[in-house]
Amino acid sequence: MNAPELFDAVEIIATKRDGAALSPAQIAWVVDAYTRGVVADEQMSALAMAILLRGMDRAEISAWTTAMIDSGRRLDFSGLPRPAVDKHSTGGVGDKITLPLAPLVAACGLSVPQLSGRGLGHTGGTLDKLEAIPGWRAQLSNAEIEAQLREVGAVVCAPGDDLAPADRKLYALRDATGTVESIPLIASSIMSKKIAEGACGLVLDVKTGSGAFMKDLERSRELAETMVALGADAGLPTTAVLTDMDQPLGRTAGNALEVRESLEVLAGGGPSDVVELTVALAREMLELGGGGEADPAEALADGRAMDLWRRMIAAQGGDPEAALPTARHVEEVRATAPGAVTFEAYQVGVTAWRLGAGRARKEDAVQAAAGVELLVGPGEQVSAGQPIAALHTDTPERIPRAQEAFEAAVTVHATVDEARGVGPGSRILGRVG
Amino acid sequence: MNAPELFDAVEIIATKRDGAALSPAQIAWVVDAYTRGVVADEQMSALAMAILLRGMDRAEISAWTTAMIDSGRRLDFSGLPRPAVDKHSTGGVGDKITLPLAPLVAACGLSVPQLSGRGLGHTGGTLDKLEAIPGWRAQLSNAEIEAQLREVGAVVCAPGDDLAPADRKLYALRDATGTVESIPLIASSIMSKKIAEGACGLVLDVKTGSGAFMKDLERSRELAETMVALGADAGLPTTAVLTDMDQPLGRTAGNALEVRESLEVLAGGGPSDVVELTVALAREMLELGGGGEADPAEALADGRAMDLWRRMIAAQGGDPEAALPTARHVEEVRATAPGAVTFEAYQVGVTAWRLGAGRARKEDAVQAAAGVELLVGPGEQVSAGQPIAALHTDTPERIPRAQEAFEAAVTVHATVDEARGVGPGSRILGRVG
Repeated sequence: MNAPELFDAVEIIATKRDGAALSPAQIAWVVDAYTRGVVADEQMSALAMAILLRGMDRAEISAWTTAMIDSGRRLDFSGLPRPAVDKHSTGGVGDKITLPLAPLVAACGLSVPQLSGRGLGHTGGTLDKLEAIPGWRAQLSNAEIEAQLREVGAVVCAPGDDLAPADRKLYALRDATGTVESIPLIASSIMSKKIAEGACGLVLDVKTGSGAFMKDLERSRELAETMVALGADAGLPTTAVLTDMDQPLGRTAGNALEVRESLEVLAGGGPSDVVELTVALAREMLELGGGGEADPAEALADGRAMDLWRRMIAAQGGDPEAALPTARHVEEVRATAPGAVTFEAYQVGVTAWRLGAGRARKEDAVQAAAGVELLVGPGEQVSAGQPIAALHTDTPERIPRAQEAFEAAVTVHATVDEARGVGPGSRILGRVG
Repeated sequence: MNAPELFDAVEIIATKRDGAALSPAQIAWVVDAYTRGVVADEQMSALAMAILLRGMDRAEISAWTTAMIDSGRRLDFSGLPRPAVDKHSTGGVGDKITLPLAPLVAACGLSVPQLSGRGLGHTGGTLDKLEAIPGWRAQLSNAEIEAQLREVGAVVCAPGDDLAPADRKLYALRDATGTVESIPLIASSIMSKKIAEGACGLVLDVKTGSGAFMKDLERSRELAETMVALGADAGLPTTAVLTDMDQPLGRTAGNALEVRESLEVLAGGGPSDVVELTVALAREMLELGGGGEADPAEALADGRAMDLWRRMIAAQGGDPEAALPTARHVEEVRATAPGAVTFEAYQVGVTAWRLGAGRARKEDAVQAAAGVELLVGPGEQVSAGQPIAALHTDTPERIPRAQEAFEAAVTVHATVDEARGVGPGSRILGRVG
């Protein structure tokens, strides 16, 4: 006979439903019992909705995070010759920063273990992007990860099945049940994985705006503060940068397209906003890892970051020299009127998603070559009929609905000054920690 | 290929989560899609929690009720020679009123189709009680129900699988996910079945107090008003009586024990509170069914109700003369101090449940003979050591935990006047409709 369960799921749900705090023991039990399948999906989703609408206090969020870490195994990179520093972005449209950032920071002397995810909905996933590179594989064993960190210094790969499995199960559930948008659940989901990864420092890129999960700065700051506090509670030095996601980052959204843009940055060029954010996050990571004297801008300019990128890609089976896939169909979008154009991040994300760059369900495949390429920068003056974007897809029947979304993304302003007022001068809106 | 779905479950969940009203079309779709299995349990439970915490307005509740009715088939008793009037109780401890009431009202000239449920948690179920009678069966076809209504006038049985199947599926889900306590969901659950039953009038017994789902009178009144409004929206004349459930109804809680007490009432005796409520509800039903001139108290006194009971039980295979099951073990509880005792309904219900009268899971069996028998009336003066209750069970190992609950149920007051202040003089606290 099995040991009797310590708690009753319905009582725990009712406690949170009625607005009371859960005890650490209740939280440890419910997360563990959910992982074991004793608490059913429909019970956990009801609890998640109650948490979303009632909230959790700091002690509850800490206990929830610990319970999710304890559902799996902690990695330990303390034996590496160079300190391991980690970065996480809450996700946005065109957010390819991990691609240039990981090799850049490794080139500056730190270890960068970057366990990443796949895209769902309108934001892309880092692994989907890298899988556009012929031969590259996302799945590594823990031993392979450590070896690559020793030999190359940077690794971007999928987390093992034993990293916070409760979070994986819970995230899929939340995604299907409208319970993603809870700051306590988002914070503990992110931080449980990051704490379990065993780095010695963590930099968070918390995005805010139409293309981000968090639409307003106040909630983004609350999320950042919650995560920085969770890091502190767990002994993981954590800082957060609040960054703008009202407009897409860079000029591409889509897997191969974003790899191409990342290569431009690694080659010392690329869109100024991508470069600004890559360098700023690199500085934060170097600060935490004790490599504060290195200059990341220089490591981009002199090719060290690009060298490290090639080694990092090759170490995971990718061919850094191979041509990236291109779409079978490219549809140009032209300006309907003269003026200064801006692009709204969420609709650009939907456009890329409708073109095939993203997935509606976890099990869907993505098109490597699909996506949006902006042909003009934000706020740039265009004439009527001038091409402003190219929509890439292998399945042209997707074009009409993608065009609809893209039309909603574009605003033509009377003057460049008016367009400039749409976005901040810098992507970086604030800092926590 | 299947037709595309009209709506997306996550969008509907998010709409309610964020506090907006759902459209009738959204509600019709989500209830239907849940019944078809397109909306998953975990999605519906998240929606139920969002409804519980955000509420629904009258139009939403009406649409939800209609959608649940439309998930199955409506019965039609309009062809019966005598008008069919229905009664529903929201459930309480010791609530056996259906047992004397159905034959009583039929004896007064109406048809009484009483589709009833089984118990879950601390409140008993009418079908469980009647199944204590040797041979009696709860499952009838729609044709058998109609034939019995024509021949006998009263029937108490399980609803067919085609009566609001969405409600059956949803209720089981809500029970497992802490989402029972929502007035819109309770009201639409009850009223969808009652409207689909096709009676021409409905009397609701809405219980309030520790032993009821609704603990306070204000929420009970809100539930009653919501259900009376739903009845009006559906063209079903409905009235509601608000009744006290701080103390158990009558002196027994448990299946065979409650049948025995019901027989006392049908024989013209029985506890005064059970008699009061039975007669009051009978008058309400007769008022709605157009049999207002009959006197139910007289039909109890002169044996007509008992005659009809016998025919009703026999028509469903039961032997009205057979001895009722008795428990293998009876444990007496004695007063620890002299004074006037009162019993708290919820804890009496828990006691009966722990003795085996109820079930923790839908698939559990109940003990026909288990339950609580109060040996003194509420507020009655007792001496120290006097037996005040008997705990009945077939499984004596259940006694200690049942005793614990029963201890919590008992209060010994210094004076009879003080004890009298605990409960109202009458069970009937108000009326709606």
